[in-house]
Amino acid sequence: MRDVSIVGIGQVPIEKSTTWSLRQLGTAVVQEALNDANVESVDALFASNMLADELQGQKHLAALIADEAGLTGIEALEVEAATASGAAALRMGYLAVMSGEADVAVVVGVEKMSEGVASPALTKALDAEREVADGATLISKNADLMRLYTERYDVPDDGLFNFPVNAHRNAKNNPNALFRNMSVSPRSVKGSRMVHAPLRLLDCSPICDGAAAVVLVPTEEARAFSPHPVQILASSVVTDRFRVEDRPDPLWLEAAHHSAQKAFRQANVNREDVSFLEVHDAFTIMACLLLEAAGFAPQGEGWRLAADKRISLKGEIPISTMGGLKARGHPIGATALYQTCECVLQLTGRAGKNQVRDASIGMTQSVGAAATTVITHILGSVDTYG
Amino acid sequence: MRDVSIVGIGQVPIEKSTTWSLRQLGTAVVQEALNDANVESVDALFASNMLADELQGQKHLAALIADEAGLTGIEALEVEAATASGAAALRMGYLAVMSGEADVAVVVGVEKMSEGVASPALTKALDAEREVADGATLISKNADLMRLYTERYDVPDDGLFNFPVNAHRNAKNNPNALFRNMSVSPRSVKGSRMVHAPLRLLDCSPICDGAAAVVLVPTEEARAFSPHPVQILASSVVTDRFRVEDRPDPLWLEAAHHSAQKAFRQANVNREDVSFLEVHDAFTIMACLLLEAAGFAPQGEGWRLAADKRISLKGEIPISTMGGLKARGHPIGATALYQTCECVLQLTGRAGKNQVRDASIGMTQSVGAAATTVITHILGSVDTYG
Repeated sequence: MRDVSIVGIGQVPIEKSTTWSLRQLGTAVVQEALNDANVESVDALFASNMLADELQGQKHLAALIADEAGLTGIEALEVEAATASGAAALRMGYLAVMSGEADVAVVVGVEKMSEGVASPALTKALDAEREVADGATLISKNADLMRLYTERYDVPDDGLFNFPVNAHRNAKNNPNALFRNMSVSPRSVKGSRMVHAPLRLLDCSPICDGAAAVVLVPTEEARAFSPHPVQILASSVVTDRFRVEDRPDPLWLEAAHHSAQKAFRQANVNREDVSFLEVHDAFTIMACLLLEAAGFAPQGEGWRLAADKRISLKGEIPISTMGGLKARGHPIGATALYQTCECVLQLTGRAGKNQVRDASIGMTQSVGAAATTVITHILGSVDTYG
Repeated sequence: MRDVSIVGIGQVPIEKSTTWSLRQLGTAVVQEALNDANVESVDALFASNMLADELQGQKHLAALIADEAGLTGIEALEVEAATASGAAALRMGYLAVMSGEADVAVVVGVEKMSEGVASPALTKALDAEREVADGATLISKNADLMRLYTERYDVPDDGLFNFPVNAHRNAKNNPNALFRNMSVSPRSVKGSRMVHAPLRLLDCSPICDGAAAVVLVPTEEARAFSPHPVQILASSVVTDRFRVEDRPDPLWLEAAHHSAQKAFRQANVNREDVSFLEVHDAFTIMACLLLEAAGFAPQGEGWRLAADKRISLKGEIPISTMGGLKARGHPIGATALYQTCECVLQLTGRAGKNQVRDASIGMTQSVGAAATTVITHILGSVDTYG
């Protein structure tokens, strides 16, 4: 088993609707990441995407992007875990390099949600027979959780507003964020359209197009590719009961808890060591519940981290430091790769105006459906942890 | 890095249309495989499926099957490579155990093609913009290859008939085969309906439902689970130019050649050491071209292996020993897992009337689209090669 590090990243600016095709998006970020790492040959490519089969009629995307990027002949596979697919592909790239089967692997996530109607396609993350057949959607499941949470814990009306406000503030300094030119105040959250009560528009991440990629190599070779490689200190995938209704407490995300605990052990760090968290804030309530499950707040008090601004860049646990799913955007299969690129920027002091001071340990969580699958990665600079 | 062995298998009989749901199919074979291996706890589940998103409106199948099989909490991910998805999932299970990230992994393939219309869904394996938009399907691509092949090499009209005849003969002794009660002669091949000239119905594998699973553990632990474990001696994934039209010679399957060569090197065996080949005979012509690319026949002479009956159980290179994709059936995401289970039966002397004498090395090849992706596995009994 070998340690694995990230030595190159590639991102395209997220757009509401791009004219680029899936293959163009994927190829652009693969080439950018390979250039960033000064890589000459690649052994394997792992791709993630959730919706292209329905929206673009395209499967077999890993081989398609490999060919388009001039990497014909390499291993290329696609990995999925619904809305956590990007993190699933990252984990497979990690296993390929860790095991010695690949010396250089590129992991690419791509999603083009602007064609067709994404929302019904997204419900395929839920149980078709026992949830979707009963009228559930990802939005309705999150609305249920938000209502239950605010009622049980008597959260004030504006108690959760600072989650989107924080995300949008951070997005303004991220040139790849969808909402890089938008300001959001608590008043604008309150005034935004009620999408699915109690979820308002500004509680929901946007439908958008994007792609991001990272290059992985063994840590022992990493400095040949990058002056500041970032090591994957932990990678963990955990599942919960598939349906929220089958869980003992719907507001306790056991998969997020278990996945975080496994990752802390694997990385040999404590929760307190984490400099910032790229949280899966597809919905405000999901960010809140993840902070509790991962141990950053007691149950029922995650909202206070936001209300007290302890999630801001200078706070006790900065989240969504480059805008998060909410304001950077959530092009599903690409999202966890954006999170990973942002972690690399933070850990190498390249996060610009959003730089978290003394950032040494970054953590990402990626969520499939209503936290049925949760994938945690912990990253640290090789300068510090290699 | 650890050697990896198969210590349990599970299969359900393939049906034209089963009343079982996806979750029931998947759970049945996972439990059968776990029982076969006397496994008490599992670390990871890798699932493969190609069509459920369209035909059943279901993604996130790995987590769904894990929950349904009572394995809530484990790692569960889905792996895809179009029509080679089963072999892709097997490879990921192999990497997970090899790398030390999982001590016990189960790999499950499931497909239910009887609901909806499978053929258009299958075209998503091709390039949506440059092949499907021009009217291509997997069937038309294989028809093109067959016409080109028979014309270039002047193959007699009945030159390829023995591929389906051999597959159907072997299927009669496989209780899990779809066509376990059907006899096929050269005359019946010739008399079968012209599906897409020159492809006749009996040149094509059937639309069907099925599921199969295997359990993987480190070889060093394997005898605690099974008296006769079978080691994965090689696992290799190789891609070609995505479109057939972009390849120097459309009749030369470079990905199959390269993948086989890599696997031979990795397993430290020669082509002559291979006791039998579970070939991806989704179409007659594909079986023929794969035999040539993998080195079992010179280019243009693969058909002679069939015509001279050298592919039969007692021949020089037995193929499709339990019926192959043609006659066992080709439930896409499950197919490579059926191939793997059949390899295990052959290598442990449990193939019944179809037992290949002195079978010591089994090889499988699984093909994504028109050989854009080819995945090769080589297996050997731990008694001999462990």
